[in-house]
Amino acid sequence: MTGVLLWLYFLFLGSVQTGKLLVIPADGSHWNNIKSLVEELGRRGNEVVVVIPKESLSLGPSKHTTTLTYPVNYTVAQIKKQIASNLSNYIGVDTSTDLARFQKYVLMIDALKVGSVKNVESLLFNKDLMKTLIEWEFDAVLTDPFECVGVIVGEYLSIPSIYMQGNHPCDAHFLATKSLSPPSYAPHLATHFTDRMNFWQRGVNTLRYFLQPMACGRLYTHADRIASAFLQKETSMLEIMSHAAIWLEYIDYATEFPRPLMPNVIMMGPIAPETKPLPQDLETFVNGSGEHGFVIFTLGSMVSELPEVKAGQFLEAFRHIPQKVVWRYTGALPKDVPKNVKLMNWLPQNDLLAHPKAKAFITHGGTHSIYEGICNGVPMVTIPLFGDQADNVQRVVSRGVAETVNIFDLTSEKLLVALRKVINDKSYKEKMMKLSVIHRDHPIKPLDLAVYWTEYVMRHKGAAHLRSAANELNWIQYHSLDVIGFLLLVLVTVVCVTVKTCMFCFKKCFRVTPKKKKE
Amino acid sequence: MTGVLLWLYFLFLGSVQTGKLLVIPADGSHWNNIKSLVEELGRRGNEVVVVIPKESLSLGPSKHTTTLTYPVNYTVAQIKKQIASNLSNYIGVDTSTDLARFQKYVLMIDALKVGSVKNVESLLFNKDLMKTLIEWEFDAVLTDPFECVGVIVGEYLSIPSIYMQGNHPCDAHFLATKSLSPPSYAPHLATHFTDRMNFWQRGVNTLRYFLQPMACGRLYTHADRIASAFLQKETSMLEIMSHAAIWLEYIDYATEFPRPLMPNVIMMGPIAPETKPLPQDLETFVNGSGEHGFVIFTLGSMVSELPEVKAGQFLEAFRHIPQKVVWRYTGALPKDVPKNVKLMNWLPQNDLLAHPKAKAFITHGGTHSIYEGICNGVPMVTIPLFGDQADNVQRVVSRGVAETVNIFDLTSEKLLVALRKVINDKSYKEKMMKLSVIHRDHPIKPLDLAVYWTEYVMRHKGAAHLRSAANELNWIQYHSLDVIGFLLLVLVTVVCVTVKTCMFCFKKCFRVTPKKKKE
Repeated sequence: MTGVLLWLYFLFLGSVQTGKLLVIPADGSHWNNIKSLVEELGRRGNEVVVVIPKESLSLGPSKHTTTLTYPVNYTVAQIKKQIASNLSNYIGVDTSTDLARFQKYVLMIDALKVGSVKNVESLLFNKDLMKTLIEWEFDAVLTDPFECVGVIVGEYLSIPSIYMQGNHPCDAHFLATKSLSPPSYAPHLATHFTDRMNFWQRGVNTLRYFLQPMACGRLYTHADRIASAFLQKETSMLEIMSHAAIWLEYIDYATEFPRPLMPNVIMMGPIAPETKPLPQDLETFVNGSGEHGFVIFTLGSMVSELPEVKAGQFLEAFRHIPQKVVWRYTGALPKDVPKNVKLMNWLPQNDLLAHPKAKAFITHGGTHSIYEGICNGVPMVTIPLFGDQADNVQRVVSRGVAETVNIFDLTSEKLLVALRKVINDKSYKEKMMKLSVIHRDHPIKPLDLAVYWTEYVMRHKGAAHLRSAANELNWIQYHSLDVIGFLLLVLVTVVCVTVKTCMFCFKKCFRVTPKKKKE
Repeated sequence: MTGVLLWLYFLFLGSVQTGKLLVIPADGSHWNNIKSLVEELGRRGNEVVVVIPKESLSLGPSKHTTTLTYPVNYTVAQIKKQIASNLSNYIGVDTSTDLARFQKYVLMIDALKVGSVKNVESLLFNKDLMKTLIEWEFDAVLTDPFECVGVIVGEYLSIPSIYMQGNHPCDAHFLATKSLSPPSYAPHLATHFTDRMNFWQRGVNTLRYFLQPMACGRLYTHADRIASAFLQKETSMLEIMSHAAIWLEYIDYATEFPRPLMPNVIMMGPIAPETKPLPQDLETFVNGSGEHGFVIFTLGSMVSELPEVKAGQFLEAFRHIPQKVVWRYTGALPKDVPKNVKLMNWLPQNDLLAHPKAKAFITHGGTHSIYEGICNGVPMVTIPLFGDQADNVQRVVSRGVAETVNIFDLTSEKLLVALRKVINDKSYKEKMMKLSVIHRDHPIKPLDLAVYWTEYVMRHKGAAHLRSAANELNWIQYHSLDVIGFLLLVLVTVVCVTVKTCMFCFKKCFRVTPKKKKE
């Protein structure tokens, strides 16, 4: 009878679909994918509580969820000022050498080091809110490890964590899951290499392999200190992250290079936004060039201004193409803006890309933009600015669906050449369409997969069986250096003893011979 | 207009679901999973052609498919005789030491070396049949790489290959996809280690890491020669296998240890067989012990006989338990078979395991049996005999859902202790039920996932974007040994030059001083 009851109990457990989920998202475009997920989770009957700071760039209420806010000691204006200051530090930095690219990477890490902990103490030391979170007795926390606060809260509440992200600025999804990044074919961040490297590139990438844990150490200088103090134990962000149940990566192999992944890292692919028809005036404008179609130009949510000279170079190039151009731009401009260019404070990027007359997409190469371009099959001219953009760009350029132009030495001629190439050379469109078909072909839709794994973690109270035993090894054991050292020692000893023995025997024989001769 | 047409073309391409599939399955229990898949693919409208030898243990017609047969130069009786001879060579071999286990593994490789090519030449040099296969213009081939023939035919026809298997006898799914098997936590075949190894075990496993490619070399001694001759180029089975589009693994993390996998290796999980009610007489028998329930005992499809003395030890143990026992056994037995034991020539294993009164499962630990036990939540007593069975067994024993007994030194007392433990100690049942729930919880059913990936490969003419660039590196490049060597050389040179310079400067200073003294 006990057996049957156990059966029923576990069958019930297996069928439980809903749970109580705490969500601590990251700001900016990071909110896009996670927002779609939490709304769907709420719609399916889960009790979803989203905790966000009172001041943020893009965070806000979402459907079918409860939103809690906490006060912070900064304003949106201050965030924007800080971002602008950071951007001006590394936009337009020359990245033509490996060293320059590495220096730019370190600059970014230093900027993120401050940004990723800006709201941590405001939440952790908000006693009332933390008490409320404890009382809620959540089944799991869903967070974006780009910011530290959700990671630390998950550890504090001792509940399973689900991390959702694109790529991580210090490759934490590889380091914390103890998944090797073989330097011979897995290019590191900011190297701008593809998975096919020459000897020199493999050399640089191998150095980066050894340096990568230090990047995380540097990124989390403040966070490690705060986490250790708050959790009252010596710990680090990487150590906390190694406890994560599941990492949901909203990227896929339409862009990513194939490499081994741990089973708790799920390449779910990006959640595609819904496509809506264009407003009438925009529809009329983009149809204005007939079969020539139009070009979409944005540099992401963070950059809508350029130095006037740079902006003039873009306009000069646009003057020479038959396509219309829709450009999200809010900065100063020369007076003679060509008639085929429409400037907008904000533009419906995905809806424009989905338009059948979209011919090319000039983009900074942010993850979302790259995937929207691929999803809608629009060839790209990329102008990477910072972060993972230049690496994203390498991935599409190496697939023959995009050209890239360096913002540092951009001229209207270079832009024009690139633009004409992706529009007039049919191979870009054909390859992009093939890539688009592959990108949209999943066994299960990204949103449904993310819902499944989040509910899975709530249902099973984690996913311990997907966490590798490698997590229990130190660096030397993990790389088998102790074992290899021991085996080499045995080998050397055996060789030495053999040689010595042989020499001894040889000498013995040699000595005997002269004696015989004397006799 | 061209853009819109391209769109429509690729949308059509993405929606194409059916194709022409060549299937070359392997014999024995390997046919189980692949048969379910090909029948489903046929049912969905794909044109599926299954090519099998005229003589086989279990291969035969399948629903919704066309079956073609080819004559071979052996009979079923000869296969059975060969298997019996191989089994007697290594069943009951002591495996208490690492060396003994390795020797047993080599014995198995040698047996498979002959078995896996037994039908190769019969198909390859059957000109009429090969001509027919060429004319069919298949979109892809689905095969089990346990036998070589399908792998070679796929390469010959230059069509994308889908491999479906459990584990591979020489780990080809790791070696051919260039997925590292880190020896610190990924135990090798026949070591009987778990993913948590002590120093000694890691040492043995590291040696196995270096030896593993040789295991494939030995396994494919004949096959490499035949393939090179037939394809008229110097090649190897591992090289051909590295061209595979997708590897479908009918195993999952309910048993497997978490480790990194390449994206073209899909852990789909086993396709569970349908459960049917038991025949009336069997139903009456298994209900005969009331709440005590019953025990299922099989040693797999290949072993249904034991030496009489061994069989007597089993009977002696069964005499002392209150449960009924259903035993698949065809060999000789002592006269006094206890009344609670029912002997059968064949038994409906999965249907028995699914019975609510099933209390324990005595099994050899074959992949199918292990998963049927887990799926139905029945604790196990395992008696591994050969192949991957002892490794499978380690995986369930380490999860606390099974006990293991060595056939080599099995006694009725040892069996009784193990049997009573898994039946009476509630922890086995509880852990097994948890494992069962995890095992049955997939985002998409294994059969549907296998269908998806097979149709995916046909639709996209392969899956090149999932194949790692590591395949283009040689062993030294892959392990970055050339780069590390060069970096060490640079380091040593820099250190030497620095030391020499310092010594030179020091000497100079040293020389000057005495001169001064003299002055």
